[in-house]
Amino acid sequence: MIDLPREFALIARYFRPLAHEAALGLADDVALLSPPPGRDLVLTVDAMLAGVHFLPADPPDLVARKLLRVNLSDLAAKAATPLGYLLTIAAPRETKDDWFASFAAGLAEDQREFGIALLGGDTTATPGPLALSLTAIGTVEAGRAVLRRGAAAGHGIWVTGTIGDAALGLAVLQGRLTDPILDPAGHLARHYHLPMPRLGLRLADFAAAAMDISDGLVQDLGHLCRAGAVAAEIEAARVPLSAAARAAGPAWLERCLTGGDDYELLLAVPPALEPVLEEEAARTGLAMTRIGRFTDGEPQVTVRGADGAAMTFSRPGWSHF
Amino acid sequence: MIDLPREFALIARYFRPLAHEAALGLADDVALLSPPPGRDLVLTVDAMLAGVHFLPADPPDLVARKLLRVNLSDLAAKAATPLGYLLTIAAPRETKDDWFASFAAGLAEDQREFGIALLGGDTTATPGPLALSLTAIGTVEAGRAVLRRGAAAGHGIWVTGTIGDAALGLAVLQGRLTDPILDPAGHLARHYHLPMPRLGLRLADFAAAAMDISDGLVQDLGHLCRAGAVAAEIEAARVPLSAAARAAGPAWLERCLTGGDDYELLLAVPPALEPVLEEEAARTGLAMTRIGRFTDGEPQVTVRGADGAAMTFSRPGWSHF
Repeated sequence: MIDLPREFALIARYFRPLAHEAALGLADDVALLSPPPGRDLVLTVDAMLAGVHFLPADPPDLVARKLLRVNLSDLAAKAATPLGYLLTIAAPRETKDDWFASFAAGLAEDQREFGIALLGGDTTATPGPLALSLTAIGTVEAGRAVLRRGAAAGHGIWVTGTIGDAALGLAVLQGRLTDPILDPAGHLARHYHLPMPRLGLRLADFAAAAMDISDGLVQDLGHLCRAGAVAAEIEAARVPLSAAARAAGPAWLERCLTGGDDYELLLAVPPALEPVLEEEAARTGLAMTRIGRFTDGEPQVTVRGADGAAMTFSRPGWSHF
Repeated sequence: MIDLPREFALIARYFRPLAHEAALGLADDVALLSPPPGRDLVLTVDAMLAGVHFLPADPPDLVARKLLRVNLSDLAAKAATPLGYLLTIAAPRETKDDWFASFAAGLAEDQREFGIALLGGDTTATPGPLALSLTAIGTVEAGRAVLRRGAAAGHGIWVTGTIGDAALGLAVLQGRLTDPILDPAGHLARHYHLPMPRLGLRLADFAAAAMDISDGLVQDLGHLCRAGAVAAEIEAARVPLSAAARAAGPAWLERCLTGGDDYELLLAVPPALEPVLEEEAARTGLAMTRIGRFTDGEPQVTVRGADGAAMTFSRPGWSHF
């Protein structure tokens, strides 16, 4: 027998148990997938780097689950059903087996929760920080994906869940938001570590346009405006905040609106379809809140404060460059 | 208008022109692809890091083309037709626009050559070295992919092209193989920078098993052995070497056999199908050489030297850990 180098031993031990049937036991050059008939494929990719997208000390299982979930959130925004994913891990050479064990355990847990499995991967050493990239594949009934384009003047602007928790959670973890009575239950930190992809909504029944909020509400709403050639006006007071976020006080409002990592959905909903949305909110138990309206005009986002004046921000959201 | 941060400006300027129709102008959360009926999807992913998989000074257009080609080589090994790819780029924040321009120009050139287009991507900053990951998607007539498993005792072991050029090319570029009369035409360095994926072969007509050689002939042949539960015996003197590789002399033979980055195909071919292979070699103009035979036995690779004795190697191929 040829002794397998550690790279292959790691794959066999930690990743083969995660493999989709189509992945051929991760023992071939490729995965081989028969696409489900009558459905479109939905494809997305996101990278995460230690020190950029997560804290180097974050538990590996939570890093794995976040990596999977930020991609699942993109599928959720198109009302797609998860199918599989491909993964690259560039890890420092000194990375211990324990790290891979915990990382794989996190993937296994979320594979069960979201009905997705590993289709392929590549594991390499890096002299730099841990760098992860995940390509997720979902399916949607042919022609039923909800795109970013489609917002029209008069449509309501809706969000799922609450906004800003993850951005404040990062501030808590970094020690910049330190009020001792704040976040005693870890609500904010949990939102940062473990976003919840809003899968399973029948978006095509009520949303004219949809996207997930990953780079900050204001900046991402700008993307919906450009895609639909409309303007947007929202009221800061309508933006749903958790009790923990409200407790942080008004000084943290800008961070909630622009901070990113929410992974909630941002929707354009024609007023006539609001009853369908309300039914869906009741069916799923997921809060959906109208925060404003799209209007005619150049693509831009106006945020009205409590006094009715337009708020200004030092930056609308996250950019890597 | 909201001013777009640089991340989005880079995408719009350099990557949108590369986008597949299914990529929705790279302006949505996802790509939306109707899979071709009657065909299986072939999925693979490979990462490349500066200082690990390529030299930091390598021209960005060549880095881009190599990244695409190493993935296309995996598709080629399954006789798949390229369809599209998703890409993540983690680049140091100080990376200049010129770098992105050259990188995208390289992608554009190979997109034209190989009939593939960009389905999606993610661009992030990194405090570490440039880190790239590419997921390639191809299609193959349903049930006609050639897998790694399938080699049986008595099958010939065949390779396309010549072996070892890229590994010697790296040695030339690193100044470790410096004979001034060697590689005056840049043959070896070109193989390192720009492998040629062996797309378009009708492998299913003559190969019982196939893979691409990326980590070294001896190690990769071990994978075919394990997948087929067979042993392999090859003769070093039969392994096809280019004139430039032969000129390097016998001291470099081990590196040719174990050095990696070949991206040639390694095939198991039943003797009865050799005439079909010969026809295909004639049709395509691609050299195919029988270097040995699979035999009954524990999965292991024996390499016979010119004296008939089994050669030993310090390592059979490349491992990252």
